[in-house]
Amino acid sequence: MTELLAGFLGPLLIDDETARMIGTDADIRAMREFEIALAISEAEHGLISEQAANRIAEAGANFAPDRSQLAIGALRDGVVPADFVKQMRAHIGAPASDSLHFGATSQDVIDTALALKLKPLFDLYETRLAAISKWLGSLLANFGDRDLMGRTRMQAAIPISVANRLAVWKGLVDRAQDDLPMIRERVLVVSLAGAAGSSEKFGDRINAVRISLARRLGLGVPTYVPHAARDRIADLGNWLSKVTGAFGKIGQDVALMAQNEMAEIALSGGGGSSAMAHKQNPVRAEVLVALARFNAVQLSGLHQSLVHEQERSGAAWTLEWMILPQMLNATGISLVHADAMLASIKRIGGYQ
Amino acid sequence: MTELLAGFLGPLLIDDETARMIGTDADIRAMREFEIALAISEAEHGLISEQAANRIAEAGANFAPDRSQLAIGALRDGVVPADFVKQMRAHIGAPASDSLHFGATSQDVIDTALALKLKPLFDLYETRLAAISKWLGSLLANFGDRDLMGRTRMQAAIPISVANRLAVWKGLVDRAQDDLPMIRERVLVVSLAGAAGSSEKFGDRINAVRISLARRLGLGVPTYVPHAARDRIADLGNWLSKVTGAFGKIGQDVALMAQNEMAEIALSGGGGSSAMAHKQNPVRAEVLVALARFNAVQLSGLHQSLVHEQERSGAAWTLEWMILPQMLNATGISLVHADAMLASIKRIGGYQ
Amino acid sequence: MTELLAGFLGPLLIDDETARMIGTDADIRAMREFEIALAISEAEHGLISEQAANRIAEAGANFAPDRSQLAIGALRDGVVPADFVKQMRAHIGAPASDSLHFGATSQDVIDTALALKLKPLFDLYETRLAAISKWLGSLLANFGDRDLMGRTRMQAAIPISVANRLAVWKGLVDRAQDDLPMIRERVLVVSLAGAAGSSEKFGDRINAVRISLARRLGLGVPTYVPHAARDRIADLGNWLSKVTGAFGKIGQDVALMAQNEMAEIALSGGGGSSAMAHKQNPVRAEVLVALARFNAVQLSGLHQSLVHEQERSGAAWTLEWMILPQMLNATGISLVHADAMLASIKRIGGYQ
Amino acid sequence: MTELLAGFLGPLLIDDETARMIGTDADIRAMREFEIALAISEAEHGLISEQAANRIAEAGANFAPDRSQLAIGALRDGVVPADFVKQMRAHIGAPASDSLHFGATSQDVIDTALALKLKPLFDLYETRLAAISKWLGSLLANFGDRDLMGRTRMQAAIPISVANRLAVWKGLVDRAQDDLPMIRERVLVVSLAGAAGSSEKFGDRINAVRISLARRLGLGVPTYVPHAARDRIADLGNWLSKVTGAFGKIGQDVALMAQNEMAEIALSGGGGSSAMAHKQNPVRAEVLVALARFNAVQLSGLHQSLVHEQERSGAAWTLEWMILPQMLNATGISLVHADAMLASIKRIGGYQ
Repeated sequence: MTELLAGFLGPLLIDDETARMIGTDADIRAMREFEIALAISEAEHGLISEQAANRIAEAGANFAPDRSQLAIGALRDGVVPADFVKQMRAHIGAPASDSLHFGATSQDVIDTALALKLKPLFDLYETRLAAISKWLGSLLANFGDRDLMGRTRMQAAIPISVANRLAVWKGLVDRAQDDLPMIRERVLVVSLAGAAGSSEKFGDRINAVRISLARRLGLGVPTYVPHAARDRIADLGNWLSKVTGAFGKIGQDVALMAQNEMAEIALSGGGGSSAMAHKQNPVRAEVLVALARFNAVQLSGLHQSLVHEQERSGAAWTLEWMILPQMLNATGISLVHADAMLASIKRIGGYQ
Repeated sequence: MTELLAGFLGPLLIDDETARMIGTDADIRAMREFEIALAISEAEHGLISEQAANRIAEAGANFAPDRSQLAIGALRDGVVPADFVKQMRAHIGAPASDSLHFGATSQDVIDTALALKLKPLFDLYETRLAAISKWLGSLLANFGDRDLMGRTRMQAAIPISVANRLAVWKGLVDRAQDDLPMIRERVLVVSLAGAAGSSEKFGDRINAVRISLARRLGLGVPTYVPHAARDRIADLGNWLSKVTGAFGKIGQDVALMAQNEMAEIALSGGGGSSAMAHKQNPVRAEVLVALARFNAVQLSGLHQSLVHEQERSGAAWTLEWMILPQMLNATGISLVHADAMLASIKRIGGYQ
Repeated sequence: MTELLAGFLGPLLIDDETARMIGTDADIRAMREFEIALAISEAEHGLISEQAANRIAEAGANFAPDRSQLAIGALRDGVVPADFVKQMRAHIGAPASDSLHFGATSQDVIDTALALKLKPLFDLYETRLAAISKWLGSLLANFGDRDLMGRTRMQAAIPISVANRLAVWKGLVDRAQDDLPMIRERVLVVSLAGAAGSSEKFGDRINAVRISLARRLGLGVPTYVPHAARDRIADLGNWLSKVTGAFGKIGQDVALMAQNEMAEIALSGGGGSSAMAHKQNPVRAEVLVALARFNAVQLSGLHQSLVHEQERSGAAWTLEWMILPQMLNATGISLVHADAMLASIKRIGGYQ
Repeated sequence: MTELLAGFLGPLLIDDETARMIGTDADIRAMREFEIALAISEAEHGLISEQAANRIAEAGANFAPDRSQLAIGALRDGVVPADFVKQMRAHIGAPASDSLHFGATSQDVIDTALALKLKPLFDLYETRLAAISKWLGSLLANFGDRDLMGRTRMQAAIPISVANRLAVWKGLVDRAQDDLPMIRERVLVVSLAGAAGSSEKFGDRINAVRISLARRLGLGVPTYVPHAARDRIADLGNWLSKVTGAFGKIGQDVALMAQNEMAEIALSGGGGSSAMAHKQNPVRAEVLVALARFNAVQLSGLHQSLVHEQERSGAAWTLEWMILPQMLNATGISLVHADAMLASIKRIGGYQ
């Protein structure tokens, strides 16, 4: 079914590490982790018994749901946690099972699990951005002094240095890095508010439970109920599309510099053609442009999802689910291609 | 890797039949079929020898490429056919291998293979649309006479009949059906124009070869070179988004009618909640809205791809590849949900 | 307030003829024409008296609404016709005023008025497309034989002729022209279905009245009630974006050909720079790309509007109103720039 | 020409204050202010003579360009400043005219002028957001204790309080307010980098001049050259669409609550219908939804503009110009409608 997304173009368009980090294994781990941490936190604050919490933590740790059942449940319920919790309850057994998922709702599970999955993914992005920034630093050191024709409106303007252009590239990457802590703070938070966002089972203990839960999961505590407030997902989308946009700009520049008559850049590697053996196509540069335009398109969908009616919209939320994973993947593979493309640069600017 | 697209929500968001029809198996079959039909057509018009064509047809028929090699090639070349042809040549052996893919380019393979894959998919869509139209006819027959409050701007307007509203639903579906022959005619065509779209290896035999090839593949012959002219893909996208848009409108209506205080519709089934056992969520109705908005978003990307520079754009084309399969899937699963949702309607309009 | 759209860039981004054809004067004319033709058609079929119809036709012909009142009404009602009809009734006077707008609703007025405004606009588009097609024919005749480097993936591929590239350009324009009759047939129709689309005031005379009305207005009769079925608007948007997409592709090609090191094209004119007196910027070529991307973005909004709930959606419809006029303008000005840019081509292909 | 944007729907869809703040008068003021402050700053750092700067400041203060000439220039050059500077030079007279616009380029003028125009606009947004937040506070105080049916997936879930729902609304508005300082810091900056972004006329005095210029204009100094790095414009777009998205969510909720069978809210006012005198349409609520979806669509275009090739892209930049003003207007009018809609709420939640 991956074929839907990319077919044989998988290695070109899919980032395996992103896929792994947000895939079903990660999903199960994250949902299980949420339920266990929730039980312990609730026991800590007297909402469920300690025995129940201990049983949930022990038995839950090796809970492996029947995946085909999960999928059947997802089709019926429109969400995965309903069946996940049902199966996990059966696995844990009475009476502790009654205490599982106490006061929580599917959205609490899903949104917190998303945060848990995004955590290592942001680390991955950070590492990759740092590597790319380093490549850009090397290029600056090696070729910054060289002359380059500055070009505006696709016409030769005045001579600039390679450093002038590279500074624009590096600035985009650096600012994306600079924004990552803010994005982490906004997105890596727990969700816990119950059936309709009113935390009705928790009374005045809700904040304490949220804080315990967040500490256990290594997440933050939002000052608001995120169920129907999706502005932080929009911020995440904006950041993802800025990252791919940065590499789209760089890729477009590289493709223009690599035009035969320009030869402002020399790349090792490059793709072949089924019809023309002599060609060296700047494949990664072009894919970077495609990924930038792809995420720019998708972002519109995440913002459509801001119109999230009442306490939970099945429509707006499902739209988010269809779009966000793909933006994460597009960002992941864009980072891969950007790194490889920059590493393949043998020369920028005129021969000296 | 399917997880990227949907994770455990696969059954909710992925149409297995669409996935199969446009997946890698179908891809290999289609590319192989193209190369064989091309060779025979070229031999028919004296461009390659009959022996070569026969050898290609015979040996080619059981050619099964090394898929991991294809993927490696795709990453290097940005397209699959370059490596596919290389492997197929090795499989066929000299001297016939030199005649394989004669005068063709990757884009000829990919675009023609797309047409071959779309052919049965359009049949599937047609069948599903017909079934849905029939459901709508039954609902009209069964409930058309009942009263329904007409609602404009989310306010009760004047009483109408259930037939009034169903007629709007059915009209959208019928017109989508009516457009299908035109979409078939526009999209189910061969592409054959060589490295840079000039058919330079064919001379004045290009039209004859295209006609032979098209006849063998059961496709049409375009009056133009489609490599860099993507208007027909835009038309396809428009049609797909009109289909999902129709069901988005219907789904939105159903979700509004199913509100507890309205009870203008009764559905069997409906999704459960992890927190509220009593709820019957109109899951399919909401997913139909999400799929409509999803395709509306994606369509923008297909139209961005109209800016397809020079004889072939790696960037615009890759963007197409990332978007079209998903629109096809969204359309396929929308048809599935629409059918099931309409089948689950036990009553529309007031009790009588 | 035009400044919102373009400020001093008006001449670059606004097509005065489109603006005039869809502006407020045209709006008033079209709404008046609708109401008068409706009254006459209704009298013809015995729904209102002949005297009333005559009075409406006579007095209505010189009805000029108070525009500031219309705007106040639009803010209150969310639509213009409510206040327009109120004012027109006062102008006509009792008792005929009671027969004005009989059985119709705001949406009937607005959608039919849209069709009336689009009619001459489609003529304008047709004329402009024909002129552009002619320019392309001249370029083909004058430069078609010349050599041009075929370029794929931004790399020199194999030599082609200028005719090869021009054929792609011309094909896109020709197919846009070929589609215009279908778009006219789909969009240039009357809307008449009353408050909630059930034509409740017309009984079995609705079809006869629609036919009379359509004949008088020079429009077609749809086989369906278009109030909440916006698929034809989506088709119109698709066509508009295909037109601008065609010129976006051409503009992108021209901008690439005009690069100094390529010099594959020579243009007269070209824009100046505040900093670099020597530059000749291919301004129109770039604007064509921007307009293509603009319409590609907007199309997504028209398709979002397909999710048009119940008998009339204030939200989806308002979104249409915000987007369609701008797509019409972008198409109009794209045609203007395409014509001027093609007329400014002094040479394509190498010097001979 | 405003008619293109809204026709008679102006009061519904256009925010006059936004229009005024970003219109042509404001444009002229801002460009003039830039050129004068630049001259003084350059004189301060010895790049032009003090006499020249004084003459520019004196004569420039009453410079009123020929607007029709500006428009003609814009059509020719694709930008306004080229002709603006030419006219201003003529107005100032030799020899000081030679020192006007020294070292600057059109983009410096346009981007800095944009910042100058946005400054009071952000103040306006801030004031309006504060007023809205206050309304929400009042509603919370007046109706927060009442019961409301919590609704998830368009189905009654469990009872919540009005305060629960209002908290979500208020949180969205509050977070938009909280982000405004960051947006100001990112967007309200000077641009000064010359013809191709290399500040070639300034040598090592560029930073000092930028700081002087920024201080005089009340703007910040970016640590980078923004010509081809449009990530901050993307951030602005994201914020604007989050604001309209917040009110889209609120508007959607209000429209659902105002359904006759729900009657969860009572609004004064409400729009009339040309066909149904009894209706009270929640016009503003629906327009808020439309504006949210509009900006969600447009944002995609701003992100497409991130692919901004080389030192300046005429295409990507023009696309920005077509989209950003409209997003600003949509945000402005959304704030107006949100304020008026919230002020019109007479009751939320059940009667008590």
